[in-house]
Amino acid sequence: MNRTVPRAALDVSLYLVLDPDMCGGVAGMVRVTEAAIAGGVTVVQLRAIGWRKRAFWDAACALKPLCQSRQVPLIINDHVDVALAVDADGVHVGQQDLPAKEVRRLLGETKIVGVSVSNAQQWRDIEPGVADYIGLGPVELTATKPEAGPALGIDGLRALLAMKKEIPLSVVAIGSINAHNARAVMETGVDGIAVVSAICASEAPEEAARALSEVIGS
Amino acid sequence: MNRTVPRAALDVSLYLVLDPDMCGGVAGMVRVTEAAIAGGVTVVQLRAIGWRKRAFWDAACALKPLCQSRQVPLIINDHVDVALAVDADGVHVGQQDLPAKEVRRLLGETKIVGVSVSNAQQWRDIEPGVADYIGLGPVELTATKPEAGPALGIDGLRALLAMKKEIPLSVVAIGSINAHNARAVMETGVDGIAVVSAICASEAPEEAARALSEVIGS
Repeated sequence: MNRTVPRAALDVSLYLVLDPDMCGGVAGMVRVTEAAIAGGVTVVQLRAIGWRKRAFWDAACALKPLCQSRQVPLIINDHVDVALAVDADGVHVGQQDLPAKEVRRLLGETKIVGVSVSNAQQWRDIEPGVADYIGLGPVELTATKPEAGPALGIDGLRALLAMKKEIPLSVVAIGSINAHNARAVMETGVDGIAVVSAICASEAPEEAARALSEVIGS
Repeated sequence: MNRTVPRAALDVSLYLVLDPDMCGGVAGMVRVTEAAIAGGVTVVQLRAIGWRKRAFWDAACALKPLCQSRQVPLIINDHVDVALAVDADGVHVGQQDLPAKEVRRLLGETKIVGVSVSNAQQWRDIEPGVADYIGLGPVELTATKPEAGPALGIDGLRALLAMKKEIPLSVVAIGSINAHNARAVMETGVDGIAVVSAICASEAPEEAARALSEVIGS
């Protein structure tokens, strides 16, 4: 049987967002994920914008046993149906996906729900009990999600974190975070950093993850 | 509470596939659906390939009370999560969507499941109890679903219907069906016809539906 990673134990400190094209398809994603987890990644999200659902489901089926064996939560971007079908640990939704409240209702109380947030209003819109964490960004402009909106910058990120007092949620910064700016981002007070190309496009994903993990732990 | 249209009472004889762009967005889809049901449409499917899920869900929320009040099943294309969120009557999946078996598992036994089929092997692949009907086609090449594969033609459709003896399922023919070829298609022995532009792109969707309905009933 599936052992779901409990919501309460969620550690968002080093959050890998898989880009299937950057990884070279499903086999590449499995390879990157295995290496990244060995290097210290604490959450894995499968994001494959534009992929048909059969291919997305195939990828999720391939990642599920790997993440489960390493006790790292597997989060599905956008597609609650795929998450339910593979019994993933949670779903991440953006502002153009299903409303987070619907996602929580469909997934039940034991699963993880994350929401992309880029301003205070979107943070305020999250009703109590719905989300476990937010993906806050983009910190810098990003080629992997061009519709994500204007960059917050380090100062904008720090300013928005004041919202944590109003609506306490774990905060994962996202948007062009890499080995160069990870420390500055962590010093704003976020709970973790999400990376895409810093790991997916690395020649050595395990070492890339370990380097980021050391910044976080330091 | 929702009264679901029972699977056993499913009448696929005049099956409308809504194209949101052809209808002019959500308001247009509601207008076309209302007229088409008045004209005799027996099933409504929401298909919005490429739409983000928030917009898809908005459309489904707008169509649900209308279809429900007319006791016409609302079928969601591809997105089981949207179907669950709005408590739609069923889901239709193509060969690149979630496997039909997963869809049936997620939806339970009371909902309608349809599968796009374009050859005997795809028909044979449908396990017992999974699907209620198949969308068989394309009868002719269609601009609204260019990836649907080579046209079967009337003869190819008739030949494939022999599969009904092997695996009995309701059959809805699809792919460029209109007032001109509807009779020839019905005479192959299918249980119904699915139309997109014949109603969605019509100046008078109610009359267009009525004319098709008369062909079916005759």
